[in-house]
Amino acid sequence: MVIASTLTPGSVGEVETRYLDLPGPVRLESGRELGPVRVAYETYGTLSPRRDNVILVCHALSGDAHAAGSSVVPPGASTRDGFGAEDRDGAAGAGLGWWDGMIGPGKAFDTDHFFVVSTNLLGGCRGTTGPSSTDPATGEPYGSDFPVLTVADMVDTQRAFLDELGIERLAAVAGGSLGGMQALEWAIRYPDQVDSIVVIASTHALHPQGMAWNAIARESIMRDPAWQGGDYYGTGRTPDAGMGVARMVGHITYLSAPALGDKFGRRLQFSDDIRYTITEPEFEVENYLRHQANSFVRRFDANTYLTMSRALTYFDLARQHGGSLTRALEGVAARTLLITFSSDWLYPPSASEEIHDALVALGKPAELHLIEAPYGHDCFLLEEARQTPIVRRFLSGDGKRYR
Amino acid sequence: MVIASTLTPGSVGEVETRYLDLPGPVRLESGRELGPVRVAYETYGTLSPRRDNVILVCHALSGDAHAAGSSVVPPGASTRDGFGAEDRDGAAGAGLGWWDGMIGPGKAFDTDHFFVVSTNLLGGCRGTTGPSSTDPATGEPYGSDFPVLTVADMVDTQRAFLDELGIERLAAVAGGSLGGMQALEWAIRYPDQVDSIVVIASTHALHPQGMAWNAIARESIMRDPAWQGGDYYGTGRTPDAGMGVARMVGHITYLSAPALGDKFGRRLQFSDDIRYTITEPEFEVENYLRHQANSFVRRFDANTYLTMSRALTYFDLARQHGGSLTRALEGVAARTLLITFSSDWLYPPSASEEIHDALVALGKPAELHLIEAPYGHDCFLLEEARQTPIVRRFLSGDGKRYR
Repeated sequence: MVIASTLTPGSVGEVETRYLDLPGPVRLESGRELGPVRVAYETYGTLSPRRDNVILVCHALSGDAHAAGSSVVPPGASTRDGFGAEDRDGAAGAGLGWWDGMIGPGKAFDTDHFFVVSTNLLGGCRGTTGPSSTDPATGEPYGSDFPVLTVADMVDTQRAFLDELGIERLAAVAGGSLGGMQALEWAIRYPDQVDSIVVIASTHALHPQGMAWNAIARESIMRDPAWQGGDYYGTGRTPDAGMGVARMVGHITYLSAPALGDKFGRRLQFSDDIRYTITEPEFEVENYLRHQANSFVRRFDANTYLTMSRALTYFDLARQHGGSLTRALEGVAARTLLITFSSDWLYPPSASEEIHDALVALGKPAELHLIEAPYGHDCFLLEEARQTPIVRRFLSGDGKRYR
Repeated sequence: MVIASTLTPGSVGEVETRYLDLPGPVRLESGRELGPVRVAYETYGTLSPRRDNVILVCHALSGDAHAAGSSVVPPGASTRDGFGAEDRDGAAGAGLGWWDGMIGPGKAFDTDHFFVVSTNLLGGCRGTTGPSSTDPATGEPYGSDFPVLTVADMVDTQRAFLDELGIERLAAVAGGSLGGMQALEWAIRYPDQVDSIVVIASTHALHPQGMAWNAIARESIMRDPAWQGGDYYGTGRTPDAGMGVARMVGHITYLSAPALGDKFGRRLQFSDDIRYTITEPEFEVENYLRHQANSFVRRFDANTYLTMSRALTYFDLARQHGGSLTRALEGVAARTLLITFSSDWLYPPSASEEIHDALVALGKPAELHLIEAPYGHDCFLLEEARQTPIVRRFLSGDGKRYR
């Protein structure tokens, strides 16, 4: 397929999140079954008569189904949610999808050509069944009874959901961070149904420091007495204090140290001098962290955070396939596009290089692009302009393999 | 002074922490006065008749007066406390001082030649007056009434303490991290009384990411309901949950990502497979973090943590001197030794280079050593063998200026 160049990328306009109930339970890797399962989703563009133009985009830890366009749900109920997305400089109006800069007419995922589907992940808190959903066995929210999930469970849920939409093949599966893990899992789990994958700022296995940051974030939530072992729903108390700290930790790991320095330096909140206070923010960066924490806890569920963080920590293609990344990728049939960012220390370029090298050694079509950019892991949400031509050329089938 | 080479470095043996009450209050930078002030201290070696062989060593965030030798206080009451020190591989027996590898006969700070003095910092929780001490105005622990401190306040307290010991001049002031900040502050504040300073893994101003990590650690403590606004003493509750998370954050920032990877990799706690649990540690690194948190909260006071973290975040030589690092260092008369470590991303080499360059531009005697070592900020506690010849030569007056 050749994609015409569009000079004036546009918006997908107003979109509404829809919901679909799967006909049967999802069988999880842990052996448990979960059901019924509802999936929140949005679509952009038009499904071709041959149903061969579908791109599934997968969100990251704190995202949702609202990937593009303006939300028509009541203001305040939904915001731009790719993690870190609210920090984008020059962000467009509230309610825009977390990857709006990448999805639309003339954009990277061009809705003039593709039918783009986005779902809230299994375990989510934005419409898809998750820990805050009602457990049919009790009539109460799952809370601590919600099963522990893997990335494969999320992918299997997407597979079951697409079955209901009558979609068998995917022209592409795309995502950043945890979203990239899903794309990889799709290519391994359903090799005959995925033509290509776009894996951005992701990895085949989080490195130990990244595991540690995630563990600290989870500890912070679970140590908050308001978490109540996970059964805080309906108690009038939520673990906002712990979730706020978890978000602060996450936030700093999504940014590079130089980017943080450029943004805040050591500027004081009040220009005159220090005020000798420990309880109040003195520096702009301290105030910013509090703001990040407070805005996050208003829109996100702590148990979903735990679920997502655990799933992305578990994800380890080599472990899941007898200790070998090569073996894990042996069955991949999809063309693979990897994009990584020089300043991303949470999902560093080396991880993408390892995936690329393993695919190339297996004779698979793979290309890796290292983008020099200063914003750390958040680049995948910020560096739209530089990702766009790479993704468009790759999706047109004209991708060249180079590094 | 020429220091003879000692082939078999020894221990300072058993030492006892002593206590001294200052004769008057300490006037703080904030304008408040604090008193009475008690200082916990230890000394190693022998004071020369001319009192010209004194080295003051300054501890870091979570240290204490017990810098060297074996403690004679009851077992369990004192452990090796330089932050990160308990993680040293091959650590000697419990009760050894946090810088035992650097202080003793034939060691970097050679007690055959020098009289080494170590104090617990003002605001500490190991014998020197701090937030957990009794406020004479109320008869209760200070708690939230304890003043907010600066590094200068800590140095002024050390100055008043040394007056009581009859010590006017210091052959050297030495320390790592927050300890290095004190050495710099000494050279600026008391230029006529300091012959040399040894500034290891330190900075003239913490960079914004480091400020953020410290802010997150403090938030974690202050958001723990058991903190009770700082007035938790005597309530039967202490903010162990929040302090534990603070320690985890600190701990990861003291290590390099590669060192963490070498130490733990992605090894599971139980070799068989994942167990699908969020509440229990699955990976060795997760278990290690919990262990670190639990051992730390048993020995450290949360309000002291807040006090130290705030002081080292405030420290900013340029801000304190009209916005110019050069102006801050103009009056320094001490010879300066700077040691920095390639993998230290919390107190990176660039900070020491800036101090070195400013001193050299002013025509001051300064030397900078960059040690290639993989352990991150913790190197200052771990890389004793490589620091020792540098420090010994510098203290012998035979230091050459090179980078």
